[in-house]
Amino acid sequence: MNVNELICNYKSGYSLEQAFYTNEEVMAAEWKTIFQKHWLFAGNTAQIPKAGDYFLYHLQSDTVIIIRGNNEDVFAHYNTCTHRGSAICLEEKGHTAKLICPYHQWVFDKDGTLLNARMMPDDFCKEHYNLRSVHVNVVEGLIFISLAKEAPDFSKIEKSIAPYLRPYQINTSKVACIKKYTLQANWKLVAENFRECYHCGGAHPEYCSAVIGANLREDTSELEMDKRKTWSENGLATQLVEVIPGTTTYAIRYPLRPGIESYSVDGKKVSIPMGLHKNHDAGVVGLVNYPNFWMDAVSDYIWTMRVTPIDAATTDVEFCWLVDANALEGKDYELQRLTEFWEITGEQDGKLCENNFKGIRSNAYKPGPYAPVEDQVVNFVDWCVEQLKTGL
Amino acid sequence: MNVNELICNYKSGYSLEQAFYTNEEVMAAEWKTIFQKHWLFAGNTAQIPKAGDYFLYHLQSDTVIIIRGNNEDVFAHYNTCTHRGSAICLEEKGHTAKLICPYHQWVFDKDGTLLNARMMPDDFCKEHYNLRSVHVNVVEGLIFISLAKEAPDFSKIEKSIAPYLRPYQINTSKVACIKKYTLQANWKLVAENFRECYHCGGAHPEYCSAVIGANLREDTSELEMDKRKTWSENGLATQLVEVIPGTTTYAIRYPLRPGIESYSVDGKKVSIPMGLHKNHDAGVVGLVNYPNFWMDAVSDYIWTMRVTPIDAATTDVEFCWLVDANALEGKDYELQRLTEFWEITGEQDGKLCENNFKGIRSNAYKPGPYAPVEDQVVNFVDWCVEQLKTGL
Amino acid sequence: MNVNELICNYKSGYSLEQAFYTNEEVMAAEWKTIFQKHWLFAGNTAQIPKAGDYFLYHLQSDTVIIIRGNNEDVFAHYNTCTHRGSAICLEEKGHTAKLICPYHQWVFDKDGTLLNARMMPDDFCKEHYNLRSVHVNVVEGLIFISLAKEAPDFSKIEKSIAPYLRPYQINTSKVACIKKYTLQANWKLVAENFRECYHCGGAHPEYCSAVIGANLREDTSELEMDKRKTWSENGLATQLVEVIPGTTTYAIRYPLRPGIESYSVDGKKVSIPMGLHKNHDAGVVGLVNYPNFWMDAVSDYIWTMRVTPIDAATTDVEFCWLVDANALEGKDYELQRLTEFWEITGEQDGKLCENNFKGIRSNAYKPGPYAPVEDQVVNFVDWCVEQLKTGL
Repeated sequence: MNVNELICNYKSGYSLEQAFYTNEEVMAAEWKTIFQKHWLFAGNTAQIPKAGDYFLYHLQSDTVIIIRGNNEDVFAHYNTCTHRGSAICLEEKGHTAKLICPYHQWVFDKDGTLLNARMMPDDFCKEHYNLRSVHVNVVEGLIFISLAKEAPDFSKIEKSIAPYLRPYQINTSKVACIKKYTLQANWKLVAENFRECYHCGGAHPEYCSAVIGANLREDTSELEMDKRKTWSENGLATQLVEVIPGTTTYAIRYPLRPGIESYSVDGKKVSIPMGLHKNHDAGVVGLVNYPNFWMDAVSDYIWTMRVTPIDAATTDVEFCWLVDANALEGKDYELQRLTEFWEITGEQDGKLCENNFKGIRSNAYKPGPYAPVEDQVVNFVDWCVEQLKTGL
Repeated sequence: MNVNELICNYKSGYSLEQAFYTNEEVMAAEWKTIFQKHWLFAGNTAQIPKAGDYFLYHLQSDTVIIIRGNNEDVFAHYNTCTHRGSAICLEEKGHTAKLICPYHQWVFDKDGTLLNARMMPDDFCKEHYNLRSVHVNVVEGLIFISLAKEAPDFSKIEKSIAPYLRPYQINTSKVACIKKYTLQANWKLVAENFRECYHCGGAHPEYCSAVIGANLREDTSELEMDKRKTWSENGLATQLVEVIPGTTTYAIRYPLRPGIESYSVDGKKVSIPMGLHKNHDAGVVGLVNYPNFWMDAVSDYIWTMRVTPIDAATTDVEFCWLVDANALEGKDYELQRLTEFWEITGEQDGKLCENNFKGIRSNAYKPGPYAPVEDQVVNFVDWCVEQLKTGL
Repeated sequence: MNVNELICNYKSGYSLEQAFYTNEEVMAAEWKTIFQKHWLFAGNTAQIPKAGDYFLYHLQSDTVIIIRGNNEDVFAHYNTCTHRGSAICLEEKGHTAKLICPYHQWVFDKDGTLLNARMMPDDFCKEHYNLRSVHVNVVEGLIFISLAKEAPDFSKIEKSIAPYLRPYQINTSKVACIKKYTLQANWKLVAENFRECYHCGGAHPEYCSAVIGANLREDTSELEMDKRKTWSENGLATQLVEVIPGTTTYAIRYPLRPGIESYSVDGKKVSIPMGLHKNHDAGVVGLVNYPNFWMDAVSDYIWTMRVTPIDAATTDVEFCWLVDANALEGKDYELQRLTEFWEITGEQDGKLCENNFKGIRSNAYKPGPYAPVEDQVVNFVDWCVEQLKTGL
């Protein structure tokens, strides 16, 4: 297996060769050229409201501490002591005034500065042993990190998604639920699955009952035109952003089926309007940022998905549900009603991805033709191959 | 580790070098030269009595769908959609009128023909996207498949085993039980174990109480001569078939201990005579087909064993018990009585194989001399090395 | 990754490069140059008091049978039959008059001699098929083995530790408890952890309450001088042995905190004085033998630790508690009180080692400076690198 040869043989419009999905060398190449380079969605600032709040993000052999500093700042550090390498934070999330290594009690500030290393000799240069940090950018409450030495430009991402995010007021919103899944599937199959609705009619009855056109059998152009007008009048972003060369972001607003208020099994609203929204008429905001961020937001809640490869055959997926800062569980929303729509739909997709991966592992698998309605999958796959090509 | 060098150093009459049993490169070479070439036992037609009945056979990264067609035919297809590779059948066995991919609903006929691929462009050549199929041969109800591009000759196998199988009427028989085991042992150790009775006296009290001579301490020649006469008069096959160069099949009929009616813990019959048999006097039919098929049949039931390597250190074993078409559970047979004899004996063998593998993993292991009574093991091991030699 | 390059880049005084802790090639090199060469602690003779008593020691792919012979001898054999390689002893410990292979019943004497191989031909040379053996040395009841072809000198080890061990009379002592742990950490991190007390103040409140100076904040020189005088008068060894080039042994006696009688949570004695000891005033005997032996003994019990790498990322640790031959459970000692001190302290260390390993797996890990009080860690790490350098 030679990654370069694989790349050369790639034929756009057809699914990838088996090795792209199953080979650990390809995974290592993707990790280097995609995950250690591009901006990765880590979580949101509502997860760490107070200074000293932190959570961990596991990225293959690395763990990154995402911690809130003293002035609303967010810092990201590798969870590795500069003394003998011990992990510093042992819990998945928590609160701490200082980052203190549990092994020999070296003390670091929230910004990573080494404050104290007891019993070290007089000529010990403390300033050489600050925590190793990771680039961070926060846009409207969404935290992105980059493992790259020099982080790529963030301004295009920010410009594309900020207008869509602003009305939700994520920074002061409330984390209602976080749920993690581990899928036995290559990460790209998870991404591909979320870039087409060719499968929706057969696989997602709940989703199709909420989203007009998801079954690819309904004409939605007139409804969209109407809605787009209303949204614009209400100051809501409607500008379609597509992933073009040099960018990683997709953004769209589309309507729910008439009479449907939210992403819910019964179509009724599940919480109070979020942030600056005044009603349940904002439709759906769909955001994607390659390689690991997906978000679908309705008027009353946000659902985010973070996709993280463990190895070629295993992918971690984290779902997070955000509601309005003032939404009270039991009064304004029921947790089960809030989460079931994406639990059902997400688990349907998880199974599809795992079955897809099982079949691809066969010697009988060959790249097959994407249908015309799978053009955004082709866009994503092209992008991946391009990253490998230019990055290697 | 060089597979060719290993093959060169092989000394017939001695157990194999450690790497033959533990090395994944050797396993890959065996997979290619043995399992992807020779006829493999998959199961029997009694498992899929009606058109549209199917079961899956997992062969390392491949899964094969064995499905009954409309005219008693049996088809075998890789379980991989020609669109984007998804697994098509998700259950280990079932019934379906058409093979419909659960991802995007491409529809295939039981014979693998692509019937419908919705929303594909007008110039899409459906006939290029039939399911990829596997060679199948059915002999007297036993289903054999070949993963080879061009399947090897099947006629010698058929000729050797058909006369032994015919009286059992497998196609209309009844599947009483299927049981799967996963052994922590190289697949060849499982095969070796089933090719000698040097271990029987010490390890298999139940088996030795049913089979005269199994302990290698009893002279059975006179009894065999008598029985052979009776069997021939009753039209039962008795012709010994040995594995010689260019063949893969072993077949034999041998007597039970006088007074013993069946393979059972108490020696009494466990069900009504099977198929065309009129009494419980057919002795034991023993069939082997390299590399993965073992069968022991008595007058009232058939027990088959299917051996499938998972990797160098792991082997799947499937036992299947067949009884007469008209045998009623609770009346004609008790499931527990039917299965316990081979459960006990098979589990004793499973432990022996796992212990054998544990010891072979040691740096202190060296090939040891087979005893003269282990000559059929030598035959099997010679055959394996020969396949590697000529196949690589 | 090139092991030689890694060795060349090693900088004494700094923790090792990541690959030394995580890479399987390094592990294989260490196995060859350290574990298959040096004397390894296996257990003690009190575990096998009678002729025919045995226990197994698993060393990666090898298992060694440690068995008591007829004349107080101890033998060590690979647990691999010379016929077809089966494991011979299937239980972790037991008693057997002869070593009989469970597969084909070849019979070996306790010293490894092949006594009987049934049904082998007349020209079979039994004397070529004795069990393959491992070097053994017993010093004052402690059993050491060497997997080397030619075992290294044992006399220096014996001379260093025998005087410390003699008063305990291990051979006639009583095994109170054996406990096994599997740690997700490289074996060297476990060894490093046990060679410094820089972490004790923060991590081991129980240990620090028993051992004066363990927190590195107390001056113990005067107390030590006093105690050393008493110990010498009582005939107890006090000679410090340090690991210098060409040796593998560390030995020391140091005092408990005044008023503390034993390693116990409440500081009170936990059993009757062991062996020749007359009181609870023997302090602590600390013994280490690179690469796998640690022992801490107080007047009334011995605690040993055996460290065994499974792979680069996994380490087995076995604790054994020994008490006086005449100590009766329930009367002279309570098992829970006897074991809790080292269970608590050992489990604290286990967590520290696992967290250390987690952090080292990060791409952000770099070798960090050992503190001056970690000089014995530097000694151990230097020794490891030296073994690799000279052994490869």
